Formats: sequence, C-alpha cells, structure tokens
Amino acid sequence: MTQIYDRVALIGLGLIASSMFWSMKRGGLAGHVTGYARSAETRETARRIGLCDTVTDSVQDAVKDADLVVLAVPVGVMGQIAAEIAPHLKPGATVTDVGSVKAQVISDVAPHIPDGVHFVPAHPLAGTEHSGPESGFATLFDNRWCLVVPPEGSDPEAVETLSRFWHGLGSNVDRMDAEHHDLVLAVTSHCPHLIAYTMVGVADDLRRVTDSEVIKFSAAGFRDFTRIAASDPTMWRDVFLTNKDATLEILGRFTEELFALQRAIRQGDGVLLHDYFTRTRAIRRGIIEAGQDTAAPNFGRSG
Amino acid sequence: MTQIYDRVALIGLGLIASSMFWSMKRGGLAGHVTGYARSAETRETARRIGLCDTVTDSVQDAVKDADLVVLAVPVGVMGQIAAEIAPHLKPGATVTDVGSVKAQVISDVAPHIPDGVHFVPAHPLAGTEHSGPESGFATLFDNRWCLVVPPEGSDPEAVETLSRFWHGLGSNVDRMDAEHHDLVLAVTSHCPHLIAYTMVGVADDLRRVTDSEVIKFSAAGFRDFTRIAASDPTMWRDVFLTNKDATLEILGRFTEELFALQRAIRQGDGVLLHDYFTRTRAIRRGIIEAGQDTAAPNFGRSG
Repeated sequence: MTQIYDRVALIGLGLIASSMFWSMKRGGLAGHVTGYARSAETRETARRIGLCDTVTDSVQDAVKDADLVVLAVPVGVMGQIAAEIAPHLKPGATVTDVGSVKAQVISDVAPHIPDGVHFVPAHPLAGTEHSGPESGFATLFDNRWCLVVPPEGSDPEAVETLSRFWHGLGSNVDRMDAEHHDLVLAVTSHCPHLIAYTMVGVADDLRRVTDSEVIKFSAAGFRDFTRIAASDPTMWRDVFLTNKDATLEILGRFTEELFALQRAIRQGDGVLLHDYFTRTRAIRRGIIEAGQDTAAPNFGRSG
Repeated sequence: MTQIYDRVALIGLGLIASSMFWSMKRGGLAGHVTGYARSAETRETARRIGLCDTVTDSVQDAVKDADLVVLAVPVGVMGQIAAEIAPHLKPGATVTDVGSVKAQVISDVAPHIPDGVHFVPAHPLAGTEHSGPESGFATLFDNRWCLVVPPEGSDPEAVETLSRFWHGLGSNVDRMDAEHHDLVLAVTSHCPHLIAYTMVGVADDLRRVTDSEVIKFSAAGFRDFTRIAASDPTMWRDVFLTNKDATLEILGRFTEELFALQRAIRQGDGVLLHDYFTRTRAIRRGIIEAGQDTAAPNFGRSG
C-alpha cells in the first residue's frame, strides 16, 4: 500500500474512471476518492455499487479539496469541464485527463488552469468494448501502456508523481509530445476503429446478405471488427473530430494503398498481393516477439 | 467412434488438413488416412510428427484407394491437382475441398471429375493466423460452421455423408449455393482481411512512426489487424484472385462509405458520426446474443 495522493476526484464515471477507482483501492494509492458524473442515473449507479468513497452532485464539490483531478469525459467536453472546475481547484493540485487525443485537449483545457495548479495530460492505452460505471475492473491497466504527455514547462515533480500513480495502477509509463502521440494513435487505434466501423456498416447495408448470415458466419476476421465497432459512440465521435488532421492524413494513405491492392486484384497481379501479404506478416511477428500478444490460437484480448 | 469413410486422402498438409487428421482420429471417423504434400520438407515433418497413417511421395498413391479425397491446397492450384488425380480416383469416391472460394473452385475442379465420382465442395469457417503441418489441432472445427456447397445435380447421399463427416469433426453444417457463399465470405472474411493487411502496411510505411512504436502501442484496435494480417500469404493471394468480383464489389461499397465518414470528419459532422457508430454497435450485440462470441472483456478467439 503506497498512497500517492491524499484526495483524488474522478470527473466522469465510465469505463476508465471506474477501473481507476478499483485499481486505486487495490493498490492503496489514494486516501479518499470523490466521483462526479453529469448524469443523475450514473451517480445513482455509482452509489449503489460503491464506486468512489463519495459521489457528489456537483462538479465543484468533487474537485474542491482534491490533490489530483482526473478528467475522464469524452474529449469534446474537456474544455467545458475545465472551465467549470477552474475556480474551485486547490492550489498545488494536479489536473490530468485520460483522453485519446492530446493536442486538442491541451489547447482546450490548459487556458483554464489557474496559476499554481499543474496540468499533466495522460492517456492510458486500455479499454474494452464496454462502457459505463459498471464496466470497470481493477486490472484494466495492468501491463498496458500509459502515455504521459506533459506540455512544455510542466512541473517536473507533478509529472513524476502522476507517472508513479499510473505505475501504481498497473501500467507501464512512457512520455511523448502531444503531436506525436496523436499521430501514433491515429495509426494504431483511431483509423483501425474507423475502418472497422465502416466495414460493419457495409455488411449491415448489403441487402443480399442478411444480418443473421453476417452474424452467423462472422468467424474469420469480421468478428474482430464488430468487437471494435461496438465501442462507445460518443467517445469515438469526439476522437475523430478532435484528432482530425492526423486521422485524415492516415486515412488518405490507407485509401491510396487500398486502391493499389484493389487494382492488383482487378488486374490479377498475384505477385504484388503475395509480396504485400508477406511484408505485413513480419510486423505481426514483431508484436509477438515484443511480448505484446501471444501466438496461441486462442487467447485473451483487452483493448 | 463412428467411422464414416474407410479410407481418406488429404492432399495438402497445412493447418486445415492437419486439424482434420487430428479431429478424425479423435472421432474415429476414418479407417485409414493417407496424406500427400508437394513439398518434401512438409512430408518429412508430417512423418516425424505422426500426421497421417501413411504419407505418400506421389499424389496418385495418396488418392488411389480413397473413399474421400480432400483437396486442402490454395484455391489457385485446385484445378491442377484435380487434373493430376482424376485418372486415379476410385469409382464411387467423393472428392471435396476446403477452399475459401467456391464458384471458381467448382469451375476449375468439376470438369476433371470422372463419371461415377462425386464432387462435393465445402468450406470450414475456421482458422488461425498459423499455417503448416505442425499448426493443426483436433478442436479447430468444434462449434464452427462448415458450409457445404453442392453443385446442381449432386448425389444426395454423397452430400449427406460429407455433411455427417463434418459434423463428426465438430462443426455445425449448413448448405449454400456457390455464388451466395462467395458474397457472404467477401463481406465477413475476405474484405476484412484485405483491409487489415492494408492498415498494417500503412503503419509499416509511415516514417514518422517507427515500427517499434507501432508494436509497442498497438493495444487498441490495431493488434487485431496485425493478427488477421499474419495469415498465410499464398492462401490469401489466391482468395482475392479467385473471388475477384464479390471482393471488388464489397471494396467499392466500403470505400464509398469510408469517404462519407472521411468527409464527415473533415466537415466536423458529429451527428453523422455518432449515428453511424451507434448503428454498428447494434450488430455487435446481435453477434453476442447469437452466442457467436462472449461479452467478457477478455476472451478467446479462433478464426
């Protein structure tokens, strides 16, 4: 049990915040955890399942004594929440967030943070297809990466303490600047999600193949897409709207390459296809060798 | 132990054939199983690990006494193998295949099948990212679908016996005509694979994001793509070349929808994005309700 913050406030009580709570309890990382959610129903659920030591009905009450304030809301509303809590933040406190996009969140939130309060953005690379206050669990962050993205001039001690906190939640911690973070995530997460959503939408549209056939025969490849495409719609809408530039750049490259493969199929160019598929196979080997996944034919997944 | 065929010949000794062998042994479905592979190294491996009761050095020797001949080779060489074995087939035997594409395989193979021999194509919807004679395991087909695709005028008894055989291997069995099969598979498997290959290729090309970053931070979404993109390059090349029409049709629809979402991102149309993501989420629920996958945050996958 290593307490890192005396009082923590969780703003937003979805998958990430609720997992943080259970993980903080597991590790004894916080003396007292306050939670707030905009929806009365979510606050009700939180109280019922014992999520947070105290659930408050106002965001001001949640943050006023907190040493760490975690913004765990969709990235599109981070700025608005920051404006609301700013006058009530305790001097010396740290504000962090868990958003999947960093440049836009920094530009939305940073202007509201008062002098004497530290803002240290972060992004835990963990998730499931589930959302809401009941979806959290203590092990969500274990052995996953958390990227800490301190803006220039951040207080080194605040950054270091937040890094230790995420380490206590089970994560490996790395640092990155905001623009690079957004490009890396566009490649490894945002564009794959958009593509999965699109492919599932195409299947749903196709009149000659029924949804029940799609569902019944979705063994090979497509089922992974449907899992990805089941994630929280609000969260993902905001990701694409706020990481617009990197997402559109990567999608542009993606459609360019897809067109090249489409042309190879149309022209019967087996050599091009075989070479392409051989090259991508090597990347998978790299992931297995890096210990990020297992080679077993059946295995768990989170994220 | 219900023996269904006295003698079975497996032509090609990769993931599917080797899994069929171990599953036949588990269920006692065959009296004797002969195996053949074009590569001497594969035959050597098969002998070493006890894959097949007899491994022959010629394809003719493998098929000559067989009651069931299974073509388990890439779909691009099915016709050539059929021509080679045709003169050696036993009267009354059944020839089947396990290819992922059916219309092209039927038009390549059927003309070679002599009178008095039955040709009943099939497609087990099962697989892993692994290939080769050592990748098989007895449970690969358990609770997965096998689609039997009999051409018009097929012998009902031969079709029925092959269906019982696949049931004995652990599969649920359904029937479908070849064209519909190829369209359903283009949606649920072939296009998702091409898209995954493409996204992994884009990541590999991007100079500003290193492969090691891609590998390290590939938790959320992308990792599923790399698993898909690690499948056998020869098999997949042949799938796209032989299911050209359905694949190109679905890819056309896919790029059309992707462009619409891309435009919504560029224009900041959050309503369109949210609606789209909400609709695709419902399909995922259908799959879970149909018992084809589990809602647990960590779960196994095969296929």
